[in-house]
Amino acid sequence: MLRRYLPILDWGRRYDRRALANDLIAAVIVTIMLIPQSLAYALLAGLPPEAGIYASIVPILLYAVFGTSRALAVGPVAVVSLMTAAAVGQVAQQGTAGYAAAALTLALLSGGMLVLMGVLRLGFVANFLSHPVIAGFITASGILIATSQLKHILGVPAEGHTLPQMLAALWMQLGQTNLITLVIGVLATGFLFWVRTNLKPFLRGLGTPPLLADILTKAGPVAAVVTTTLAVWALGLAERGVKIVGAVPQSLPPLTMPALSPDLVGQLLLPALLISVIGFVESISVAQTLAAKKRQRIDPDQELIGLGAANLGAAFTGGYPVTGGFARSVVNFDAGAETPAAGAFTALGLAIAAVALTPLVYYLPNATLAATIIVAVLGLVDLSILRKTWAYSRADFAAVAATILVTLVVGVEAGVASGVLLSVLLHLYKTSRPHVAEVGLVRGTQHFRNVNRHQVGTDPEVLTLRVDESLYFVNARFLEDLIQRRVTDGCAIRHVVLMFSAVNAVDYSALESLEAINQRLRDMGVGLHLSEVKGPVMDRLRKTHLLDELNGRVFLSQFDAWQALSPQPARQTAAQ
Amino acid sequence: MLRRYLPILDWGRRYDRRALANDLIAAVIVTIMLIPQSLAYALLAGLPPEAGIYASIVPILLYAVFGTSRALAVGPVAVVSLMTAAAVGQVAQQGTAGYAAAALTLALLSGGMLVLMGVLRLGFVANFLSHPVIAGFITASGILIATSQLKHILGVPAEGHTLPQMLAALWMQLGQTNLITLVIGVLATGFLFWVRTNLKPFLRGLGTPPLLADILTKAGPVAAVVTTTLAVWALGLAERGVKIVGAVPQSLPPLTMPALSPDLVGQLLLPALLISVIGFVESISVAQTLAAKKRQRIDPDQELIGLGAANLGAAFTGGYPVTGGFARSVVNFDAGAETPAAGAFTALGLAIAAVALTPLVYYLPNATLAATIIVAVLGLVDLSILRKTWAYSRADFAAVAATILVTLVVGVEAGVASGVLLSVLLHLYKTSRPHVAEVGLVRGTQHFRNVNRHQVGTDPEVLTLRVDESLYFVNARFLEDLIQRRVTDGCAIRHVVLMFSAVNAVDYSALESLEAINQRLRDMGVGLHLSEVKGPVMDRLRKTHLLDELNGRVFLSQFDAWQALSPQPARQTAAQ
Repeated sequence: MLRRYLPILDWGRRYDRRALANDLIAAVIVTIMLIPQSLAYALLAGLPPEAGIYASIVPILLYAVFGTSRALAVGPVAVVSLMTAAAVGQVAQQGTAGYAAAALTLALLSGGMLVLMGVLRLGFVANFLSHPVIAGFITASGILIATSQLKHILGVPAEGHTLPQMLAALWMQLGQTNLITLVIGVLATGFLFWVRTNLKPFLRGLGTPPLLADILTKAGPVAAVVTTTLAVWALGLAERGVKIVGAVPQSLPPLTMPALSPDLVGQLLLPALLISVIGFVESISVAQTLAAKKRQRIDPDQELIGLGAANLGAAFTGGYPVTGGFARSVVNFDAGAETPAAGAFTALGLAIAAVALTPLVYYLPNATLAATIIVAVLGLVDLSILRKTWAYSRADFAAVAATILVTLVVGVEAGVASGVLLSVLLHLYKTSRPHVAEVGLVRGTQHFRNVNRHQVGTDPEVLTLRVDESLYFVNARFLEDLIQRRVTDGCAIRHVVLMFSAVNAVDYSALESLEAINQRLRDMGVGLHLSEVKGPVMDRLRKTHLLDELNGRVFLSQFDAWQALSPQPARQTAAQ
Repeated sequence: MLRRYLPILDWGRRYDRRALANDLIAAVIVTIMLIPQSLAYALLAGLPPEAGIYASIVPILLYAVFGTSRALAVGPVAVVSLMTAAAVGQVAQQGTAGYAAAALTLALLSGGMLVLMGVLRLGFVANFLSHPVIAGFITASGILIATSQLKHILGVPAEGHTLPQMLAALWMQLGQTNLITLVIGVLATGFLFWVRTNLKPFLRGLGTPPLLADILTKAGPVAAVVTTTLAVWALGLAERGVKIVGAVPQSLPPLTMPALSPDLVGQLLLPALLISVIGFVESISVAQTLAAKKRQRIDPDQELIGLGAANLGAAFTGGYPVTGGFARSVVNFDAGAETPAAGAFTALGLAIAAVALTPLVYYLPNATLAATIIVAVLGLVDLSILRKTWAYSRADFAAVAATILVTLVVGVEAGVASGVLLSVLLHLYKTSRPHVAEVGLVRGTQHFRNVNRHQVGTDPEVLTLRVDESLYFVNARFLEDLIQRRVTDGCAIRHVVLMFSAVNAVDYSALESLEAINQRLRDMGVGLHLSEVKGPVMDRLRKTHLLDELNGRVFLSQFDAWQALSPQPARQTAAQ
């Protein structure tokens, strides 16, 4: 029991020197990557830069205790930072103490919800977010985030949480562009793109060992930070209008209290839920992918508790909502992290940075951080999901397209909500018109297949329908209509057999429909039979009067039904 | 084409003398039944009594032209009258011209929606109302309606649209009870109950011919109307505080214009939709039940057009929303109605009543009409649905219970909405945790069944799972977790076979999950195979890379998979 809630007891007992060495190497690489990212994501969330660093210390430690993934790297991530900005921006003014306090409240609510969902084993609610909706949402978020950073590249103020708002604000402010800021931003962005795509092959070409090439590539953002900071300091660019990070408190994470007014909590409940679910979904998919590579297991309910604990930690130590990041978890895994201890060492690295390195980022230009974010999030933008879903299924395409469009034009919460709603409605619509195949006997076998796809034998007096859907209220009447139409059109029909091999459930509405069908067929002098009814469905039907009143029989297999209902001569004719 | 939209062209050509005679008899019986009912339902809807008569003339004629049911009797019905009162009561004061005009608007909107749904073939939206939700809603409506009539029996004013409001209002007014009204009401109610349950057996016992006994029973309400009207007139009870119907205009239905202010239309849109859908569902179920008895066919989309035309007719001739009534359609059918012409003759009967009989109901006490309603609607109240659904499935029970409770306590619209929402959520929840059976070979056959229910042969190296649900976003991750758990727990497993006989669809999320499962199993060195994939599912999977990248094969039948994957010695051991 204790070990279920504290996975650290499991891996901690077997921790050895080899694991320690591997975890330490991974921690160094992730720390180098995380320092500029945590500053940048705090900027994206509208918070002071230190919030990003604080959000990467205690939350990581808590996840190391409660989480089940060996490789997941927890901390501030782009999409959740954007959602935080959108949610907190609606209840407080950016830059105020109220804003930071509301971000803590959001982390508290999100952490509380995650822990609660984990304890109540409600991880399945995340399933309401379909893959296409998540892909569409992340793509749209990437576009929103990249656009939101353009103001830092241009060095102009521009507010707005939707794409049209942001573009309009940027357009209005274009004349105020600070050229020096623009040069720094464009150079940094170009450099980071080059590092991302070309540095590693370039270094390998020079004969650099793979691990070193890898570390140097990951250190690319650090190089951009150092270079631009030095340039701003040496050339006195801050006096020329280049916005800089400025003074960052030099301390370990402080103990903070989230604001808890009922009004604020009420307004943040829904955003907190969305942040929790989206953060969880992002996290669990990367955790499971990485775990599978080593044949390890992730317990989704315990992951909820781990992420919840991390967010509660963020709420009380000056952070904001966190989750498992995709890119940094993959880096962690590739660098050889063996246990959550690697995360703990990363936290240690960040703590050292918080105490020792913060004065060094005083002259760091915001444009460089914006460049870091832009290069990071453009990797999230993948419009190919539109083409892929279009090719596979129009319903999935509609859900993606709606999610992207509404996220960009209305906002992140409306985007997710409309995607989920549309997915559910389209699913219900599809199951409301199930595929029903008339089947016949494949010659020389005991198999029954669709008469339109296969050469099969049939009998005009026996209509056999294979219903390819569970029967429930949304399609109950469909079956009534279908059978009535088929039987009134086919005058020779004396028996209707419903083949239930693909009927996984029959709800009360469908039961009443079956009773109505039975009654109507009896009025018409036609028998109603069932075949291949599954165990769980049969268990339930046995509790009702349907089987007693059935105007026909229940057959174990469709072949039994055929042998019993179709007279020998008809069968011989049909099978020829 | 024309004949699709005008079913009258179909049956009208073959109309003969025998059909005419049968239709005439049915029309007489239904007319006798309909006169007091239409006055009473208008009272329930909060409208002047003539509105009920008008709603029974032109709408019936229009349905006779456009409807497909041979037996459906259209007109004012109890549940729709209640819903009209609830909807119109929110936008206008009862007794004002605005109230009547809003009722016309409601009929117009409802008619327009029904016709539109019919033309667009959207009849399936009615399927979102599950049988239990409808049963619960009708039961709760019956209770609400009966309670709402108690004020007429007591002769007191009492407003309110929910059960607690009505009971509180009645309690406050109890002291003002008019004793004469109470005596009339109680006697009329008792008499009508006796007629309903005992008169027919009593008359048959006296040797009355069945048809006459039937007509006399149906005329029971007329007898109550005549007797109490005469009593009130002869004894001058109206001056003693007995509320009477009063002056009813003596005319054919007038030409009326529904109010059309944008505000009003906006407020009535949702109620109109609910009235349309509920009216359609009630109508179509009785129409189909009656049609089946004569092996006739109902076209649901054309029914929408027929009911829509009837409502449009009501909107322009002083009526209010109408639909096909259950009790009166059964009476119509039992009395021998052969074609919609029976309805036309009923309309003629009502038109004569409107012109000639209205002065005679001047002294008709409201208490008698209330008694008519109470006796009619108590037949709708059937709390056994709670017991039946409880026995069959907790999910259906929850939907019924929520519908009944919310309808009584909050209102009709909230009641239906919460029932639908809960049904959908519970369905999604159920399909999010599908039944997955591990199957093995039944000895001596080619059949594979659940290892927990049957004596079957298995092979420790081959895990065969039969997934009993379509794979879609709500359960995609469930399968990922399940397979990862089973494979990490069972170290000997070398092949996983997913038996797809009950998988009716695979959406894009599930496709990505299958790809993830495939990738993870490959990382673990385990093969992934599919068997018994249905045609429509296979068509879709062929458009993707899954089949090319599959870390295993697709087998036509599970038996093929077993033969290919399980080595001969293992099979022999397993089958022993």
